Amino acid sequence: MWRSCPYDLKTGLIAGHVPTSRHLSDLPTAFADAAAYRRMLDGGDPLLYQVTQVEENNGPGQLHYGLGVLHPGKVGDEYFMTKGHLHAWRPAAEVYVGLAGRGVMLLEDERSGESALVALEQNTVVYVPGYTAHRTINTGNEPLVYWGILGSEAGHDYGTVGARNFRQVVVEIDGSPVMMERTEYLRRIDQ
Amino acid sequence: MWRSCPYDLKTGLIAGHVPTSRHLSDLPTAFADAAAYRRMLDGGDPLLYQVTQVEENNGPGQLHYGLGVLHPGKVGDEYFMTKGHLHAWRPAAEVYVGLAGRGVMLLEDERSGESALVALEQNTVVYVPGYTAHRTINTGNEPLVYWGILGSEAGHDYGTVGARNFRQVVVEIDGSPVMMERTEYLRRIDQ
Repeated sequence: MWRSCPYDLKTGLIAGHVPTSRHLSDLPTAFADAAAYRRMLDGGDPLLYQVTQVEENNGPGQLHYGLGVLHPGKVGDEYFMTKGHLHAWRPAAEVYVGLAGRGVMLLEDERSGESALVALEQNTVVYVPGYTAHRTINTGNEPLVYWGILGSEAGHDYGTVGARNFRQVVVEIDGSPVMMERTEYLRRIDQ
Repeated sequence: MWRSCPYDLKTGLIAGHVPTSRHLSDLPTAFADAAAYRRMLDGGDPLLYQVTQVEENNGPGQLHYGLGVLHPGKVGDEYFMTKGHLHAWRPAAEVYVGLAGRGVMLLEDERSGESALVALEQNTVVYVPGYTAHRTINTGNEPLVYWGILGSEAGHDYGTVGARNFRQVVVEIDGSPVMMERTEYLRRIDQ
């Protein structure tokens, strides 16, 4: 019950724990540029990220925590990203602690539709409030490694985001990450 | 509301946030060796640790998080340590993420009286379950820097630990940290 859990900052993994691995083919709706997505899939199915969830403690006041490692890369102009999720229990917040690498989180308030892009990188903490869809995006050249910590009652809802997508995409323009409306980006790339 | 909060891994501080600072004189009951404690206080009142609490979000599902920096040093054989606390709402757990340095956490189950010592150091996570008094101890030569993340409803109870102390002390013996009964240690140093 009482234990200390070492993790590997280089690999973003925890010895003795099996991570969930997400490859490009596991994110069929995330990337706006469908042509670039198909082209990349034709060449293989790269590993995008792994998350090791530690969910041993449950009940009032208990916490879950997950170590994420998101690899660098792009599909067209869109950086490698996670599926993104809401919490099944919508009021639940999550604290992200950036450990290595450079990236951003795309946040979208489910109620207002408002979006924001905030930095998630080494030595940075991001607070994701309730009712907020959140996706991690690697905008750098090294693995982005981070902890996400949240109440055990939060749960994950991937389906809502998977079905309707985030309204915004994050694309590289002139070497920098830019958030723009998905519909606008689709017009730009003529899809 | 949506923001990214960078922190300084070297200082253990967050720009624009005022930390709580604890000096030796703020821990009058923590160290068992009262003679060594008085001798050190006679020579000054060193800073033991600072904690920067971020408690902006409150309510169901919300989280608090605090960045701690505990400096290296000893009072007699006892390493510099925090006051230690229970949560006011006893079931509340806390996740500690070790960022820099080397140390341990002393855990004591309030219900059973059982104690444990677990490593808290760079790239290590410690889960502190509910009903567990916990104290951070720097057993290394550099500042021990860590995040503590917990539910906003947890609260801190320093009074219970301050009044009755942890049953165990952590002392350096032959260069290594050893946990022993406070009463046994007091016999050893003849106090």
